[in-house]
Amino acid sequence: MPELNHRKTTILIFDEILTKKTDVKTRRWLNSYPLRYAVRAGESLKDHKSFPRHISKIVSLVGRLPRSEIRIVAVGGGSVGDFAGFAASVLKRGVPLIHIPSTWLAAIDSAHGGKNALNVDGLKNQVGTFYPAQDVWLVKSLLQSQETARAYEAWGEVLKMALLVGGKLFKQVSRASVDGEQIWQLLPILILAKNKIVARDPHETNGIRYLLNLGHTLGHAIESELKMAHGLAVMHGLSFSIHWSYKQKLLKEKEFHSIYPLLLNSQPIFKRIKNAKRYLSQDKKMSQRKKINFIFLKSPGHPVILPVKIQDILRELKRQAAL
Amino acid sequence: MPELNHRKTTILIFDEILTKKTDVKTRRWLNSYPLRYAVRAGESLKDHKSFPRHISKIVSLVGRLPRSEIRIVAVGGGSVGDFAGFAASVLKRGVPLIHIPSTWLAAIDSAHGGKNALNVDGLKNQVGTFYPAQDVWLVKSLLQSQETARAYEAWGEVLKMALLVGGKLFKQVSRASVDGEQIWQLLPILILAKNKIVARDPHETNGIRYLLNLGHTLGHAIESELKMAHGLAVMHGLSFSIHWSYKQKLLKEKEFHSIYPLLLNSQPIFKRIKNAKRYLSQDKKMSQRKKINFIFLKSPGHPVILPVKIQDILRELKRQAAL
Repeated sequence: MPELNHRKTTILIFDEILTKKTDVKTRRWLNSYPLRYAVRAGESLKDHKSFPRHISKIVSLVGRLPRSEIRIVAVGGGSVGDFAGFAASVLKRGVPLIHIPSTWLAAIDSAHGGKNALNVDGLKNQVGTFYPAQDVWLVKSLLQSQETARAYEAWGEVLKMALLVGGKLFKQVSRASVDGEQIWQLLPILILAKNKIVARDPHETNGIRYLLNLGHTLGHAIESELKMAHGLAVMHGLSFSIHWSYKQKLLKEKEFHSIYPLLLNSQPIFKRIKNAKRYLSQDKKMSQRKKINFIFLKSPGHPVILPVKIQDILRELKRQAAL
Repeated sequence: MPELNHRKTTILIFDEILTKKTDVKTRRWLNSYPLRYAVRAGESLKDHKSFPRHISKIVSLVGRLPRSEIRIVAVGGGSVGDFAGFAASVLKRGVPLIHIPSTWLAAIDSAHGGKNALNVDGLKNQVGTFYPAQDVWLVKSLLQSQETARAYEAWGEVLKMALLVGGKLFKQVSRASVDGEQIWQLLPILILAKNKIVARDPHETNGIRYLLNLGHTLGHAIESELKMAHGLAVMHGLSFSIHWSYKQKLLKEKEFHSIYPLLLNSQPIFKRIKNAKRYLSQDKKMSQRKKINFIFLKSPGHPVILPVKIQDILRELKRQAAL
């Protein structure tokens, strides 16, 4: 684990599971911080109702330290990063934040881009801030302490970025096998690609950052209804978007066949979805009353946003479930 | 009251007292907003434990409105502005904010400068953001609906700014009588003066903004112990700082005599303070373990920050109580 300075004024917020599932060195490192706050990862950590209880404890850990000396280091996956990022952004009106992601998904995606959020009454990400981390530390031994399945669960975001960016990244991802070592190799280029998009729209005001939702419209509905891991649900969402783009003749046959081998067989999953309508209309990314900005693909590196009706999505889902 | 656009997508957060204490026009104006959220002003509004309850209601008011269309308009004094400012800064990761201050104190001070905060377990302003309002609307009829006493309560901040800035503002304030009409006349120059200081240190990182605490070190202790109105407590804090500056020979006799007529007779108040030590060491603006950055005055327009021990303040307080 990295040797950080300012140990005595660092609030270490970490996933409690890491004190069990990691090697002795990492555990020793976690315990070497005097100001530690262990949390249980998951959506309950993001429930805004529990925030006052958490922040009370963090404020009492901080004690009399002046704002200029405090910083928060977050060690964990997406929910820990979201929680700790929000806490850092509001503690004494903001203290520096460092992310040390412990999951591939966080290392690829959520630790970068400066977004955090809490859920309000079951509605996702209703409260939060744009608050970029001062640093993101990628620690191979920590990331490799995850089970192999976690690499599969992250792959949706890897493939999404490859489809969005195209070019060299698409070629590399096309050749890659799904495992931690490969993701580790791909991390620099994946992060650079995300940061480039974020830099053009840091506060989600001009629509460019919306492209990062490729595969997420249906993906979120699948994640919610089938309680599937995020990155895996996104894989099926990507499959849906690619097949629809092809059907719409936005994506040419040759391009479709270059992408097709990278997709999961989603037909059995699509058959199991019964409440897509409900989950689609709940999606926070819905633009108007009945229209959704859906992200199609013309070719790797050329996404295109078109407004569609929820009815259109449901009809296409039915078609793909019967393919 | 000002005619605002986007009435249907504006969340109006307002002090419930305004529906009773203002004229028919203002009340009709308040009621003309479909998305209203009435709050009870005061420190309990700033208790972080009640924030989830408030934000739940605000999120349900917002419903399906997309972030880009929502904005929050805050109508009230300091606590309402702090609460609504924080809410605006975190609702869907930030929506535009407009302040319509209803107290002189908010119109002069808290509505400007972009700071908001909530209290955590009795400790003031532990959680908050720097989030400047898009606009601050000053409405004479609304401000004049306050009782006259409120002008006295605001005067501490007026005098503080005059002492910090000196020059023309100091001359104008020296000649002014304490009433709403005078404060109204002074508002533009007072706000400009504050904004100039804030612009040089928007996130309180280089110490310049700290100057705005002139008179506040002892002022806060008086406010807490004697439950005195903020601006009035600051008046006594200014009196303390000026007398101490004179005693220390930082402030020359001639300058002292130009300021002296503007000060309250604080001796009776200083005699009543018993727990200054406790309240001084609680002050969030304390710099080190036992040293406080205290703001002295060399002349109007020339503040100077010197580190002092709490013991020094207590000794000086005793001296001034016996003057």
